[in-house]
Amino acid sequence: MNIKEFGGEFKLIEKLSRTARNKNVIVGIGDDAAVVKFGNQKLIITSDMMCEDEHFSTTYYSPKQIGIKAMASNLSDIAAMGARPLYAIVSISLSDKTTVEVVGEIYRGLYQATDAYNVDIIGGDTTHASILVINITLFGETDNGKIITRAGARPGDVIKVTGPLGGSEAGLRLLKDKVRGFERVKKLHTEPSCRLDISDQIAHYATAMADISDGLASDLRNICKSSGVGAIINREAIPVADDVKRAALLLGTLPADLALYGGEDYELLYTLPENFSDLVPGVQIGKIISNEKIYLDNKGERTELTQFGFDHFL
Amino acid sequence: MNIKEFGGEFKLIEKLSRTARNKNVIVGIGDDAAVVKFGNQKLIITSDMMCEDEHFSTTYYSPKQIGIKAMASNLSDIAAMGARPLYAIVSISLSDKTTVEVVGEIYRGLYQATDAYNVDIIGGDTTHASILVINITLFGETDNGKIITRAGARPGDVIKVTGPLGGSEAGLRLLKDKVRGFERVKKLHTEPSCRLDISDQIAHYATAMADISDGLASDLRNICKSSGVGAIINREAIPVADDVKRAALLLGTLPADLALYGGEDYELLYTLPENFSDLVPGVQIGKIISNEKIYLDNKGERTELTQFGFDHFL
Repeated sequence: MNIKEFGGEFKLIEKLSRTARNKNVIVGIGDDAAVVKFGNQKLIITSDMMCEDEHFSTTYYSPKQIGIKAMASNLSDIAAMGARPLYAIVSISLSDKTTVEVVGEIYRGLYQATDAYNVDIIGGDTTHASILVINITLFGETDNGKIITRAGARPGDVIKVTGPLGGSEAGLRLLKDKVRGFERVKKLHTEPSCRLDISDQIAHYATAMADISDGLASDLRNICKSSGVGAIINREAIPVADDVKRAALLLGTLPADLALYGGEDYELLYTLPENFSDLVPGVQIGKIISNEKIYLDNKGERTELTQFGFDHFL
Repeated sequence: MNIKEFGGEFKLIEKLSRTARNKNVIVGIGDDAAVVKFGNQKLIITSDMMCEDEHFSTTYYSPKQIGIKAMASNLSDIAAMGARPLYAIVSISLSDKTTVEVVGEIYRGLYQATDAYNVDIIGGDTTHASILVINITLFGETDNGKIITRAGARPGDVIKVTGPLGGSEAGLRLLKDKVRGFERVKKLHTEPSCRLDISDQIAHYATAMADISDGLASDLRNICKSSGVGAIINREAIPVADDVKRAALLLGTLPADLALYGGEDYELLYTLPENFSDLVPGVQIGKIISNEKIYLDNKGERTELTQFGFDHFL
């Protein structure tokens, strides 16, 4: 059976996963990162693979941008756990087209992204294949032992995001359609940054957290599934930057749809008790409910969300 | 400049590597695995990427064998540090050809390899690309804090290997040439095992250790380089199994050449003081010398080794 018929990557991961036997595994497969007890500390581990012509194209990414993005997506997963990144393991397969200069630029991008957070690249693998592939495994720690999973959202919690969404998807479409201008929007796709700048602050209050890598709808569904709750999202409250709105108009799509189904924005999505909401940065976009469904409220008209954005196989 | 002109993968890694700034990094890029101080323990980390049509072919590997081999190569790196594996992070990109059944079989191979050593797969990434790629990052620990790097070999040490070599390369050539029979030899290539069964015992006495993944010549050179020493190898002492010798004859090559330049045997190569040699398993194949060159002794005729086996770009 092909993977599409089977139900896509999330179904597949469910099928392949096993519960860890080692009692030191605190969070296994199914969150932004895994967490294990190691010695007297908690070790937080995440891994992302980026493949040529699937996650990036060498036609509209500079080599340096490939490096920046590969590292940012991993840094973002560590941020989503309320943790701090320490070390990266970089495995890279290079194609016949890849020159020494190109690899040098990819690494310049990797180092630019890691240097901001004092992360060392301490190992990996360098090999050859028909396409360029980068896999980064990033691991980190927490200061106080507290980690934020996707599983703690409670009915009544408010839902917040750390910044405007939809920019990465808009940037991708602009690049694909070879639209001139909109340089800032394009860079939201090719040079994303993560929210390690404020994740620590949020982790003090958040009941659940995820980074927005698959799109608001999909990542919110993950939180709801893990927490056994539902949500109501106020469509009008979803923050979208002005230039992204203009890009949406040009691209013939709705700004909120870019945010809901786009992905790769690497902002943080989190829930917390309403009375703490003013203590943390971000924009409130909805509320957690006990009914295990996700509703979209559009000026008082409530519809159930049934589409959930990007799956590599659907 | 293309990577071949530049001098291949090892030169490239040297160019791209930076010294870690974090003082907790004990072993960085350039050994079988990285080692960091994490909390009150040492954490050992390795990562290997396997790409379709470069490291394996779906025409002569079963999906299960792909899983076995991907995990074995990583387990072997942990063994080479004298450490014990704990957790694996598996990132996999699947192509359009990959069915749910094929992925299931790959995982059956992964689990078969991990189950032997109580290793849990605790995370990773599942994605799509034009080729099948598996990247595994494996984390481990040591019982007593002792790790064996490539850097401790001393003049006068004897050089030992844990078992017969050249089988994997012979198996690969038999498979490529579609030679019938030699099933055991072929499986040395497609279903390798690692030497975690005895690595712990060796680690008590070894001054330096590496696994034989790139070939005896290349891996010995790594030890010599890291240790600032040289070596004399007795060509006739290099152990090669009888069926591998027969395969070599058929393939028109010399058994010792398969061992020296073949790679992927995943036996351990280690050095230790001569007076401890009888206390550990393995076959003595040579001696460490202070002159930083590697010599091959063929029935008393000594030649300097200048060819070093496999490089993905040479």
